Amino acid sequence: MAVTWFNDFYKQIADSPLSHWLEVLPAQIAHWQKEQLHGDFNKWVKLLDKLPKTQPSKIELKNKVEFGQVEDINDYTQKHITGLLKQFAPWRKGPFDLHGIHIDTEWRSDWKWDRVKPHIHSLKDRYVLDVGCGSGYHMWRMLGEDAKMVVGADPSQLFLMQFQALKHFNPSPNNHNIHLLPVGVEQLPELKAFDTVFSMGVLYHRRSPIDFLYQLKSQLRKGGELILETLVVEGDETTVFMPGERYAQMRNVWYLPSTAALTVWMQRVGFKNIKVVDLDQTSIEEQRATDWMDGQSLVDFLDPEDNNKTIEGYPAPLRAVIVAQV
Amino acid sequence: MAVTWFNDFYKQIADSPLSHWLEVLPAQIAHWQKEQLHGDFNKWVKLLDKLPKTQPSKIELKNKVEFGQVEDINDYTQKHITGLLKQFAPWRKGPFDLHGIHIDTEWRSDWKWDRVKPHIHSLKDRYVLDVGCGSGYHMWRMLGEDAKMVVGADPSQLFLMQFQALKHFNPSPNNHNIHLLPVGVEQLPELKAFDTVFSMGVLYHRRSPIDFLYQLKSQLRKGGELILETLVVEGDETTVFMPGERYAQMRNVWYLPSTAALTVWMQRVGFKNIKVVDLDQTSIEEQRATDWMDGQSLVDFLDPEDNNKTIEGYPAPLRAVIVAQV
Amino acid sequence: MAVTWFNDFYKQIADSPLSHWLEVLPAQIAHWQKEQLHGDFNKWVKLLDKLPKTQPSKIELKNKVEFGQVEDINDYTQKHITGLLKQFAPWRKGPFDLHGIHIDTEWRSDWKWDRVKPHIHSLKDRYVLDVGCGSGYHMWRMLGEDAKMVVGADPSQLFLMQFQALKHFNPSPNNHNIHLLPVGVEQLPELKAFDTVFSMGVLYHRRSPIDFLYQLKSQLRKGGELILETLVVEGDETTVFMPGERYAQMRNVWYLPSTAALTVWMQRVGFKNIKVVDLDQTSIEEQRATDWMDGQSLVDFLDPEDNNKTIEGYPAPLRAVIVAQV
Amino acid sequence: MAVTWFNDFYKQIADSPLSHWLEVLPAQIAHWQKEQLHGDFNKWVKLLDKLPKTQPSKIELKNKVEFGQVEDINDYTQKHITGLLKQFAPWRKGPFDLHGIHIDTEWRSDWKWDRVKPHIHSLKDRYVLDVGCGSGYHMWRMLGEDAKMVVGADPSQLFLMQFQALKHFNPSPNNHNIHLLPVGVEQLPELKAFDTVFSMGVLYHRRSPIDFLYQLKSQLRKGGELILETLVVEGDETTVFMPGERYAQMRNVWYLPSTAALTVWMQRVGFKNIKVVDLDQTSIEEQRATDWMDGQSLVDFLDPEDNNKTIEGYPAPLRAVIVAQV
Repeated sequence: MAVTWFNDFYKQIADSPLSHWLEVLPAQIAHWQKEQLHGDFNKWVKLLDKLPKTQPSKIELKNKVEFGQVEDINDYTQKHITGLLKQFAPWRKGPFDLHGIHIDTEWRSDWKWDRVKPHIHSLKDRYVLDVGCGSGYHMWRMLGEDAKMVVGADPSQLFLMQFQALKHFNPSPNNHNIHLLPVGVEQLPELKAFDTVFSMGVLYHRRSPIDFLYQLKSQLRKGGELILETLVVEGDETTVFMPGERYAQMRNVWYLPSTAALTVWMQRVGFKNIKVVDLDQTSIEEQRATDWMDGQSLVDFLDPEDNNKTIEGYPAPLRAVIVAQV
Repeated sequence: MAVTWFNDFYKQIADSPLSHWLEVLPAQIAHWQKEQLHGDFNKWVKLLDKLPKTQPSKIELKNKVEFGQVEDINDYTQKHITGLLKQFAPWRKGPFDLHGIHIDTEWRSDWKWDRVKPHIHSLKDRYVLDVGCGSGYHMWRMLGEDAKMVVGADPSQLFLMQFQALKHFNPSPNNHNIHLLPVGVEQLPELKAFDTVFSMGVLYHRRSPIDFLYQLKSQLRKGGELILETLVVEGDETTVFMPGERYAQMRNVWYLPSTAALTVWMQRVGFKNIKVVDLDQTSIEEQRATDWMDGQSLVDFLDPEDNNKTIEGYPAPLRAVIVAQV
Repeated sequence: MAVTWFNDFYKQIADSPLSHWLEVLPAQIAHWQKEQLHGDFNKWVKLLDKLPKTQPSKIELKNKVEFGQVEDINDYTQKHITGLLKQFAPWRKGPFDLHGIHIDTEWRSDWKWDRVKPHIHSLKDRYVLDVGCGSGYHMWRMLGEDAKMVVGADPSQLFLMQFQALKHFNPSPNNHNIHLLPVGVEQLPELKAFDTVFSMGVLYHRRSPIDFLYQLKSQLRKGGELILETLVVEGDETTVFMPGERYAQMRNVWYLPSTAALTVWMQRVGFKNIKVVDLDQTSIEEQRATDWMDGQSLVDFLDPEDNNKTIEGYPAPLRAVIVAQV
Repeated sequence: MAVTWFNDFYKQIADSPLSHWLEVLPAQIAHWQKEQLHGDFNKWVKLLDKLPKTQPSKIELKNKVEFGQVEDINDYTQKHITGLLKQFAPWRKGPFDLHGIHIDTEWRSDWKWDRVKPHIHSLKDRYVLDVGCGSGYHMWRMLGEDAKMVVGADPSQLFLMQFQALKHFNPSPNNHNIHLLPVGVEQLPELKAFDTVFSMGVLYHRRSPIDFLYQLKSQLRKGGELILETLVVEGDETTVFMPGERYAQMRNVWYLPSTAALTVWMQRVGFKNIKVVDLDQTSIEEQRATDWMDGQSLVDFLDPEDNNKTIEGYPAPLRAVIVAQV
């Protein structure tokens, strides 16, 4: 089932600074549709198609992500929507409010946004990229800050579905200015066009953080801003930790540098004005199981005796936010 | 010098039946801009940039191709425009009228249009492709018939310049609906989307007419119409002429079938309702040297003793127009 | 099941005029082994592995293709071999003699060889290519003429098996000098290295005979010789017949030129000294059903009332052999 | 000027465990010859062609690298050879002795070999790869240990010339068993075929040491041995140093882990039995300017006040040799 979700994006960028993306993206998407669809993809698309059309009386993106109020729909419709959305579980990043339905996600991503936002350049009228955007919670918040265009990149198809489900409920014209693309960072051409690039929660999953930093840099126009969030450890300029097969039960975790070491790396790649603006050990209040994500969560991945350690005995997740310019 | 002429086309097709073209075209155009530009390309673009902005009081595409009247501009401007346009000589297909400037081209392409038009399906609201469109004379006539979108494909960069020069003088909104792309037929993906495909004057230049017919067919939607014009010879179903190195001084001429043989080929490829609607030996009034094409023309390529023969002794150019459906 | 049959070929050509083939062939073969194997391929390879090792007391390639005599093996072994080889039916080109087993193929390919051989340059010490070699009957005859290396190209995997089965019984050192590669002519790089190229029974299956002739030419060194055999029709320089969907029940038959028209084509492509050395209407004695090919054969494809016509009413198969130089 | 040096390698590997290399290498070499030759390449090849043919009375690879004795040639010839070889300066890895000519290279690579050799599996009858082989000094020593085949990979074309110059003077049959290929490690297919892989002096030049370790691993057969030499720093499992733009004046130096951190990385990639067998701070006796390398050397790159520091103030070069199995 070929979806045409991305054609509007092509249209929007054809005469924008992002137009060079057309040289590779439509071919990548076509290949993805032919060769790489998730086994449940068609089922998911059918579920999306069942979502009822509503008329949200209020939309809020500035302080939270909310489409419509409870009064806009009847009880039956609310239950219908809830039932459909639950089929896209687990919901990890959020929360979202939808006509009185509170999608209580594993993460309080709004808390992170509150910590990040004070430190970044205003997004107003900017082209913004979010690499590893997940289901797009922060993208909506960026749109709420009046970005000109918000583009997310994340290969997970379930996240794409969650994003499209939310997008379904946004009747505003700015819905043309927010797009999630199912591609990985390594598929992005060197656009050198974005005013702001976010990448939160990705670097520690990369085998080559230096190449990853170059990729992020190559998306930014001269003078553009990077907001990078990743797992770090305490230490000096030469401290870099690499766990074994699993870290807090996650597979595929590679380098956890100190913020000082990460700063050296970023300088080496060519970033300037590198500032650590936030450092936060994730609490079990910020990441936890909910009705919308009923699997294991952080509390299960920490040492029950000592929450400052992971179950493997490593330092518990400590996340830094770094802001820098090109 | 990277031109952005094609971005508007990308925008127009992003949500059209032609959207799949985006999977290959922007990459082809980018490659063309990097690797394949004509030595005079930048000079030509600068000439185009010098064309003054005018306000045409009248536009005529239905019975001729005319942008603006002589009264719209002063004498100096007319001379200026004429001087610029002459630098794009030789002008082969036309004629065009531009604020009183009569671009008298080598070919009276309007005569051909008059012979073809009565036999084809109305172009109103149709997606139309012209393979081997030259400088685009017939494309303007197609637009004059209210086609929804007219796309020409021709790799010649001089023709592209001539086309863009004309396009410069068309202030109508339908200017978004006419585009010449510098690509060859072998670069087109199987779009299966056009309502009408024209190919006039190309088949005899192809080493493999069967593959060419398949390529044309693959551009048409089910039920779409092909208008094919090519050189033919007299004869029955088994008559196919191939000249030596040159035919009427042209290099690169391959198969000249009889209309009967060509009909067999088209049937074999899967065309239906194949009709020969015109057969015309080109006259030296229809193809001749002019002020805008001052080189040799048909009269020089025919046997001076016998205008029914080429200078090489072959049958003089006889052109058939065939209409068929997919 | 990856076969290593071609490694010996790589070894043989690494320091030969064919060495440039290594730039594409091993990759093509690897792709073929991964993506394009026939459903019965593994079964066939297992059958090949069951063929007993014999010690042929006599090998004859000069006047016929024979490996071993009946006395070299016992009755049981002969039956065993026969049973295995029958599983590779239908056997089309031959005949072959193997320790007293007479593989009586559909075609008397030896008759064709007898008609062709007198007209060609001696093959002694030459690099020879056979495009569309089938199971390789003529390749063995070429080896019998002391060619330095005989290479066949044919994508049919059953033919490859039949060839490998025969090769199994050849203990001579010249077995290193004969190789069948499962590739089509369009996969061959421009080697410009062969002294002699044969292509018998292929041209009429090509959609573009001109491109095919260029491909054959690009395999030949300057001064090399082409032996081309194809279906033709009676007629003059402008006679070219194209049948409908089927010709003598064969699908995929395209151009049948007269020998005069074919000569024009070959001149145009750059061949010299073009000579029609044989013209032969295939008899029902030369192509017929046998114990080793028990399906329909020529007699079933001809008009029962008039053997000069095919069952579709076209002229019966007439085959020309043309010899030319580059 | 297309060289045919590699055809013998293709021949040697066609029926070896390395045969799959043919699927990519000849195409890479052809591309290299067409697109990537050094500006002096043709000049260098002409110099090589001028090297006289000699008859070495003695060849020594076991304890040093020596081809021929002074008595084998006359004085004029010795001067001629010396003059030619000097044109390939700077000579970095060695030393080599050639008919009494002592090529005194920047590095005493023999000292390194003496430190490494006691700790590795015997090379007898093994397929050996040297990634980043330079001019191939250690390759000759590996051949001296009776390796079955020694293959070096290094993209530097000057090193290739130096190697070919030496190879020119080796008349032994084992000259077919030693080959330097001008390719980078990222161009190697996953051969999983070598018994022993060396990589000395490369890892610190890689932006992604993890990917590099995977590439090395993918060259080794199950049970094969890696000998890895790289720059390290003192420290524990979380110590990883990254210099600024230059380290000891070298550009392009990235990660310098402690041996403990490097061990963690290698475990993560899947190596076993990881042992640090040597740790050595490079002395100014081991790396220094000579008649054959008259530029700056180590002494110029160290802090004149404190030879334990580089001129940039970083820890002076400390090199570890690590041996591990797959």
